[in-house]
Amino acid sequence: MRKIQVIGIGAGDPDQLTLQAVKALRSTDVFFLLDKGEVKSDLTRLRRDMLDAHLPAGSYRVVEARDPERDRSAGGSAYSPAVGDWRGARAGIYERLIAGELDEDGTGAFLVWGDPALYDSTLGILEEVLARGAVEFTYDVVPGISSVSALAARHRTGLNRVARPVQITTGRRLAEGFPEGVDDVVVMLDAHRAFRRYAEEDMDIYWGAYIGTPDEILVSGPIAEAAPRIERLRAEARERKGWIMDTYLLRRNPTEDRPVRNRPTRD
Amino acid sequence: MRKIQVIGIGAGDPDQLTLQAVKALRSTDVFFLLDKGEVKSDLTRLRRDMLDAHLPAGSYRVVEARDPERDRSAGGSAYSPAVGDWRGARAGIYERLIAGELDEDGTGAFLVWGDPALYDSTLGILEEVLARGAVEFTYDVVPGISSVSALAARHRTGLNRVARPVQITTGRRLAEGFPEGVDDVVVMLDAHRAFRRYAEEDMDIYWGAYIGTPDEILVSGPIAEAAPRIERLRAEARERKGWIMDTYLLRRNPTEDRPVRNRPTRD
Ligand SMILES: C[S@@+](CC[C@H](N)C(=O)[O-])C[C@H]1O[C@@H](n2cnc3c(N)ncnc32)[C@H](O)[C@@H]1O
Ligand SMILES: C[S@@+](CC[C@H](N)C(=O)[O-])C[C@H]1O[C@@H](n2cnc3c(N)ncnc32)[C@H](O)[C@@H]1O
Repeated sequence: MRKIQVIGIGAGDPDQLTLQAVKALRSTDVFFLLDKGEVKSDLTRLRRDMLDAHLPAGSYRVVEARDPERDRSAGGSAYSPAVGDWRGARAGIYERLIAGELDEDGTGAFLVWGDPALYDSTLGILEEVLARGAVEFTYDVVPGISSVSALAARHRTGLNRVARPVQITTGRRLAEGFPEGVDDVVVMLDAHRAFRRYAEEDMDIYWGAYIGTPDEILVSGPIAEAAPRIERLRAEARERKGWIMDTYLLRRNPTEDRPVRNRPTRD
Repeated sequence: MRKIQVIGIGAGDPDQLTLQAVKALRSTDVFFLLDKGEVKSDLTRLRRDMLDAHLPAGSYRVVEARDPERDRSAGGSAYSPAVGDWRGARAGIYERLIAGELDEDGTGAFLVWGDPALYDSTLGILEEVLARGAVEFTYDVVPGISSVSALAARHRTGLNRVARPVQITTGRRLAEGFPEGVDDVVVMLDAHRAFRRYAEEDMDIYWGAYIGTPDEILVSGPIAEAAPRIERLRAEARERKGWIMDTYLLRRNPTEDRPVRNRPTRD
């Protein structure tokens, strides 16, 4: 039976690989590297460098393929034919890779940025490929250091405050309003700088771009002061590199009418 | 200047150490292992085993100390004297360890379970020690695989659903009600099995205990069926080992009056 490993490789720093991930790399016959277009080819190179660093040359095979972008011009509606086409196209590509490039008893791997459990579609696509029934395989997941953990570590802060919750969400959701019931919110996939909407509020922001890479940029502080600085640095970096990955934690200061029990717990 | 490393060591599987964590271990002179009482001594042993596995014998020193438990009998109020005493006592212990056991230019490390950013007090205590002003040091944080990432990987599921948020919270909070604005909730520190309250609802649960260790137990499925099984396995395991660590993801199925746009995003 074919075996697939979905390996979290950390969010930028090659030393964020776990020992488990290194072992998984070493037991892989074929790596499937999916490229989302030219702007992301830096990320494909980083994956290749990781393989070079940990595996003897000639001990493995790499198959590159193009991961189709969704056609956004077709409108944003959830169940539009464009979305169906796109999901089908992706499942088709994965299916062909697994069926065509992997021996019956071979082990293939997908190297997933950060942690496969956060805003990544690999597991969903593999389930879809299995549901189509054209190729059989088993699969395992190796957790990785997410950009969320990397962000918190670089800012030397916790994600939650004592005994309180934290929410992880997207820029698109944040643009619709600050999430209810939480004061600590991590924002990913924010192409439109949704944080700007909160620049007048009593919040701190902990922002990071290209975290763990030589291009890393970190900014933190009260959002009123930090937001303009982030906007400027973000625009410059995006211009320079052609693409950007950034994540941030928004930490709202509790007010009288938002009572917060800031009590310590055992930990 | 003294240097402190706060090293996330993963949530149970020694192979969840990152390469960065291994390097940090190797650059440490003195490890501070804080024990929260007899039931947790298994965890202290696991830390010692990690050191044995990665460091040449004789190349480092270990200092064990007792981390005081909070006196809960004094009542739960946030700013009670008992809480102040407890925080002060902990900061005092860390201060004495750093000042007394580490050379002026030495490197000390605290090995933190999982990821230091989630429900861990080490960073807060270090900030408190620095604020007291009696000892100076710099410190760094090495992110770790949290029990949250480990849980998701073992169940081969994402934490969030496509383009949707996820909240991480405590058992105590969940007992007060299902968080607003999210359908995917990860629960930690749940000594009282708050999930039982939701056993009649249309939800799935992905539960894990001792994840990543030889004692690992995993259960998933519709909560109505899974909850009684979890209760039984949890009680047995707790009885057998004397302590338990468990975490779970609750995934509520969206209903008509809780509209969910389940649209795919770029990822
Ligand atoms: C498709 S999601 C993948 C997240 C990934 N699975 C993880 O665990 O970090 C991509 C988003 O992750 C965040 N991200 C990933 N790597 C990052 C990095 N090195 N620095 C800052 N943000 C990063 C950004 O918010 C980006 O929009
Ligand atoms: C004080 S918190 C520390 C969390 C840790 N910093 C992390 O990132 O996983 C302890 C809680 O973490 C969860 N936990 C830690 N390790 C676990 C494991 N191996 N299996 C299941 N739950 C675990 C449990 O919910 C436990 O109550």
